[in-house]
Amino acid sequence: MADQILRIDGRAPDSLRDVVITPGHMPNAEGSALIEAGNTHVICTASVERGVPRWMKGKGRGWVTAEYAMLPRSTTERVRRDRGGHIGGRTQEIQRLIGRSLRAVIDMEALGENTIIIDCDVLRADGGTRTAAITGAFVALAQAAASMRRSGLISRDPVRERVAAVSVGIVDGVEMLDLAYDEDSRAEVDFNVVMTGGGDFVELQGTAEGKPFSSAQLDRMITLARAGIGALMDRQTEALKAVSETG
Amino acid sequence: MADQILRIDGRAPDSLRDVVITPGHMPNAEGSALIEAGNTHVICTASVERGVPRWMKGKGRGWVTAEYAMLPRSTTERVRRDRGGHIGGRTQEIQRLIGRSLRAVIDMEALGENTIIIDCDVLRADGGTRTAAITGAFVALAQAAASMRRSGLISRDPVRERVAAVSVGIVDGVEMLDLAYDEDSRAEVDFNVVMTGGGDFVELQGTAEGKPFSSAQLDRMITLARAGIGALMDRQTEALKAVSETG
Amino acid sequence: MADQILRIDGRAPDSLRDVVITPGHMPNAEGSALIEAGNTHVICTASVERGVPRWMKGKGRGWVTAEYAMLPRSTTERVRRDRGGHIGGRTQEIQRLIGRSLRAVIDMEALGENTIIIDCDVLRADGGTRTAAITGAFVALAQAAASMRRSGLISRDPVRERVAAVSVGIVDGVEMLDLAYDEDSRAEVDFNVVMTGGGDFVELQGTAEGKPFSSAQLDRMITLARAGIGALMDRQTEALKAVSETG
Amino acid sequence: MADQILRIDGRAPDSLRDVVITPGHMPNAEGSALIEAGNTHVICTASVERGVPRWMKGKGRGWVTAEYAMLPRSTTERVRRDRGGHIGGRTQEIQRLIGRSLRAVIDMEALGENTIIIDCDVLRADGGTRTAAITGAFVALAQAAASMRRSGLISRDPVRERVAAVSVGIVDGVEMLDLAYDEDSRAEVDFNVVMTGGGDFVELQGTAEGKPFSSAQLDRMITLARAGIGALMDRQTEALKAVSETG
Amino acid sequence: MADQILRIDGRAPDSLRDVVITPGHMPNAEGSALIEAGNTHVICTASVERGVPRWMKGKGRGWVTAEYAMLPRSTTERVRRDRGGHIGGRTQEIQRLIGRSLRAVIDMEALGENTIIIDCDVLRADGGTRTAAITGAFVALAQAAASMRRSGLISRDPVRERVAAVSVGIVDGVEMLDLAYDEDSRAEVDFNVVMTGGGDFVELQGTAEGKPFSSAQLDRMITLARAGIGALMDRQTEALKAVSETG
Amino acid sequence: MADQILRIDGRAPDSLRDVVITPGHMPNAEGSALIEAGNTHVICTASVERGVPRWMKGKGRGWVTAEYAMLPRSTTERVRRDRGGHIGGRTQEIQRLIGRSLRAVIDMEALGENTIIIDCDVLRADGGTRTAAITGAFVALAQAAASMRRSGLISRDPVRERVAAVSVGIVDGVEMLDLAYDEDSRAEVDFNVVMTGGGDFVELQGTAEGKPFSSAQLDRMITLARAGIGALMDRQTEALKAVSETG
Repeated sequence: MADQILRIDGRAPDSLRDVVITPGHMPNAEGSALIEAGNTHVICTASVERGVPRWMKGKGRGWVTAEYAMLPRSTTERVRRDRGGHIGGRTQEIQRLIGRSLRAVIDMEALGENTIIIDCDVLRADGGTRTAAITGAFVALAQAAASMRRSGLISRDPVRERVAAVSVGIVDGVEMLDLAYDEDSRAEVDFNVVMTGGGDFVELQGTAEGKPFSSAQLDRMITLARAGIGALMDRQTEALKAVSETG
Repeated sequence: MADQILRIDGRAPDSLRDVVITPGHMPNAEGSALIEAGNTHVICTASVERGVPRWMKGKGRGWVTAEYAMLPRSTTERVRRDRGGHIGGRTQEIQRLIGRSLRAVIDMEALGENTIIIDCDVLRADGGTRTAAITGAFVALAQAAASMRRSGLISRDPVRERVAAVSVGIVDGVEMLDLAYDEDSRAEVDFNVVMTGGGDFVELQGTAEGKPFSSAQLDRMITLARAGIGALMDRQTEALKAVSETG
Repeated sequence: MADQILRIDGRAPDSLRDVVITPGHMPNAEGSALIEAGNTHVICTASVERGVPRWMKGKGRGWVTAEYAMLPRSTTERVRRDRGGHIGGRTQEIQRLIGRSLRAVIDMEALGENTIIIDCDVLRADGGTRTAAITGAFVALAQAAASMRRSGLISRDPVRERVAAVSVGIVDGVEMLDLAYDEDSRAEVDFNVVMTGGGDFVELQGTAEGKPFSSAQLDRMITLARAGIGALMDRQTEALKAVSETG
Repeated sequence: MADQILRIDGRAPDSLRDVVITPGHMPNAEGSALIEAGNTHVICTASVERGVPRWMKGKGRGWVTAEYAMLPRSTTERVRRDRGGHIGGRTQEIQRLIGRSLRAVIDMEALGENTIIIDCDVLRADGGTRTAAITGAFVALAQAAASMRRSGLISRDPVRERVAAVSVGIVDGVEMLDLAYDEDSRAEVDFNVVMTGGGDFVELQGTAEGKPFSSAQLDRMITLARAGIGALMDRQTEALKAVSETG
Repeated sequence: MADQILRIDGRAPDSLRDVVITPGHMPNAEGSALIEAGNTHVICTASVERGVPRWMKGKGRGWVTAEYAMLPRSTTERVRRDRGGHIGGRTQEIQRLIGRSLRAVIDMEALGENTIIIDCDVLRADGGTRTAAITGAFVALAQAAASMRRSGLISRDPVRERVAAVSVGIVDGVEMLDLAYDEDSRAEVDFNVVMTGGGDFVELQGTAEGKPFSSAQLDRMITLARAGIGALMDRQTEALKAVSETG
Repeated sequence: MADQILRIDGRAPDSLRDVVITPGHMPNAEGSALIEAGNTHVICTASVERGVPRWMKGKGRGWVTAEYAMLPRSTTERVRRDRGGHIGGRTQEIQRLIGRSLRAVIDMEALGENTIIIDCDVLRADGGTRTAAITGAFVALAQAAASMRRSGLISRDPVRERVAAVSVGIVDGVEMLDLAYDEDSRAEVDFNVVMTGGGDFVELQGTAEGKPFSSAQLDRMITLARAGIGALMDRQTEALKAVSETG
């Protein structure tokens, strides 16, 4: 498939951007990571709080929730902060997606009545901030879970499986992995895929911005995404190994 | 596949609920429809307004946007209105989905600098309100487009294709079409599929609430959805035919 | 009085519009009714919730409160929803009026520490939505009270008396009953009257939009309203009788 | 009628509280008055601004609008300011009433495309703040109108008639004029009456808080109100005479 | 220093405006004062409430907090109320300053778990409203503290020291005490000084609006402020003496 | 003075924390810097936008404004974002201070009708975030000004002077420079000093949290601050030199 096509940054259609995950980036947090995927950089932190939201009390189960924000100058044009009264629809959609994706791999009973709040703050945005946030947030979450066990707050590991995410899409009729902003903004189809370590799907969110897509195109995009997520999970493994060796 | 399994309401796993689309339900609107899918009832209206949002002015293109709300007693327990300060994340997510799905089949140049506002108000909610809203809203939108042509506001039909939507999911390990609320609330996987008349995808939104899903499960869900959407489009055609004969 | 004057829709000045009250319109609610008065259609529901607002706790008394909203396309021009931060003054005024009117006929001790929330959602607005809402809401409320007795939540009927409402006004110098929107918008005086089954007043709200009105005019408007409310109470009786026979 | 009944402060049922209107209380404003009715004290100001709200532009007509607020310690228990997000229903209802009452006596053509903003700030609240606000605001408004003529902003007097307001009610079965807070809070019926200098009604707002009222009671309350408003208009005349002599 | 320079109102640079403090101005409040400093008039009230904010509970300590507002026509041009959703930055800054200044002289243990809410409402604004508010609020606070002791709510005086405040600034290169609005708006430097009866500083807030200021200028401004605050404290003493003689 | 006293981190009372200013940290912005002062790290960016706020239009002058935010896990305990409806008082106070401090050294005529928006986002908070923000923001602002000249948007340098800021305070009776969070939270006095390159004051904000402070203490704090600001300006000079050599 179309290997000869070169993208803006010289990548092949099926190549990820360079990805670096630096664990422990925010030393005050129970878990944290800076994920850099090309020019998309996101700080992910996991904060442990005792107790759960009111509607969950007394069930012996925990909760994981997420917030997402962009620094105003993470983008080429300054964007406004989500401040004046209500949170924008895009922000809410993204932070709900991050929260659901992480909850899918957490054993809430093992977490006890504790809440882990994930904060994803985008330093630079060059496409794929929501998927980078999920991939980085998993590293922060795993550290926070380990820290809860070390401190005796919980007794068994609540992390059932790994989770990571990547974007795929169709640009100029070609399926591509891990779209940068310029590609994303002219893509006909924009697809976000969240998968577990076991290769199953947690979330599939595909949108035809321009032109509807066929089953064959769907299959090709999913093949690309599966390979990309495999590579991202290798980076997660390295990052968590580095933590456990130094931590 | 599992035809012998009977669902709460006696349907087979691959059966739609009974669907009735009544066009012209809101006589003040340029287009409207009441869609009843089992016990999910949604009023969809399309309102034509001159002009477009500020950020779109001067480009000769139109806009389609959507709002979604539930009557407080559309549900078994009364739900609060989206009034106090900000609009809930679920509401925003749904109305953004409806808007994107309809824009995918509209030729914005043909619409001129006019806006069509879609209002989807849920009278009864028994699962699948967002997909019913899309299916019903298309009927309202098509009427509004026809009304704009009759009045001379636009000169050619901005509707490029039909669009409809349905939910599928996995309940107790079985893929099922068109989930009712009780099914949806215990589903392992919840999937919303939006397709065009040509059989391509406009949106795919799948979430593993409980257990991640495999590629094989994905394929089976898409097959179910495709058949369901075909049947829904027959209902849209009948409704629009009824309008053009009487209108 | 002025019987020879014919109104837009051919009614005499002292005629009500055709009124149909359909009880049980919202099957999830403890009580509900669709009231259609000419082209003004309002869905009224009564929801029973255990407990009372914080400031009322521990007094052994119940509470009745109301919310009012218009579907955006209930009107000729689309109206905005009451969403962005604060509820409009008109909406607040109307829902306070509905709540007060219903509380006037309810024995709060008999209700125990329970709350009945009335939701009035306008499907079509052609003048007189607030008075139609009160008349219809009484039917929903009476059903909810009966349902509370049947389920054993309360032991005696909290409904002391019937209540209904109608608008009257002065248009082109002539007192008229039950104004439609076109009449209301050019009326010199707009008057809403809420009365009990016993013929006493619960609320009187008269506003001279254009020209102040005299005592003689006031007397004639009240005479018109009294007759109109009598007829509306016959419709309520029929609707509640239909419920008790089928329910 | 019940003249032998003495009220808390020794008044007869048909007596007003002592009323003092001090014009020019807020020297920065184009018009202002402090009205003291017993222990109810309200500062009323009228501010002239060029232009009208957007929806009124280009029609050659002016606008009068009102805002109402209570100082937190105008009451026995401190009340919260209307700050947190949205304006309370009671506040909105009152300021809409004040605005409508004043607009009823203003010739909007004579005002040109100018806006008069009335601010009513309650220093002490002992019942009847909304009616005192209307009575005092008329004095502020008349001064502002005179100031507009002196400065040449308008050429003829926009004030068509005087307007004043008073409360009446039924307490312990007795109709009473000008209720103080303690009377108001245990009144069966609470009635606000706004009348013109010519003796006609601008607004009638009667609410049965406890027990519905009959036609005969309505008539007696209106008789009381009419006499009270006559006396209040004498105070307005004196206040405006004092201004014109000194101003 | 520059004694020959006369200011707008004929004052010398080191002169205060005439100051009158009238205690007991708001009879419903536990403490109150009207402070008039030239044409700056502020009503200050102190309200005693049982309990403390949630984050302070169970520590046996009290709390003092402040709110500040301007009547819309306290200024030459009408200013908007702090109503629509959020409180302006200037308002927040001022009410935080008032709160901190008063808390600095209160023994929170002596106050027990009670809250004193200070309300400062500006009737007329001619510069120096925040410093007048602090000076007047202290008089209200001291009365409220005395009232709490009289009623037995607390057993010892929580007021450790007096506190008062004044503005100083540099106008046309000359240091001046107690700036009126016209001076303040063209001042190069605007300085607010809050001091205790013992002559120490509670708050110093100096801002170079136009031109930065030197150490020598700082010293001269502080000398002016110290003298002014001494004179203001004499007014406070007289006002509190008047209360204790009559109260 | 008290050199033998060692602080938590071993510093002398008159020592700054280690300060590193890294210019160009946010490559999308016209100017940016990461300032690290001990464990207080703030990203400062300067964004250039054409045009000025509405109230400034047509005067040929520019504007500089600032926003300040903390990442939720910049602190030991997670802090909430300023999202829900209104911006907190502390945030508003800080961003107003940053804006005023920078405007004091900018020639608004030289800026033309352009706006520079300063964003200060705190990555780690260990005391002194507002002063670090000012010191870092100046570096970002100077770069943005240089970029505007290079691009021809303006013709002369709008930066009149350098500006930097530091905190001082009294802890356990000892005056100290550049308080870390633990010192700040138990300080009797907290002082923020903003000075120009010429050694004059732009802002002085001193608050006695616990115990009022004397003139002698004020003088000693100012001496400390002056020395600290001198050292900070050396770091600014180095950072800007690095930019101009590479940029």
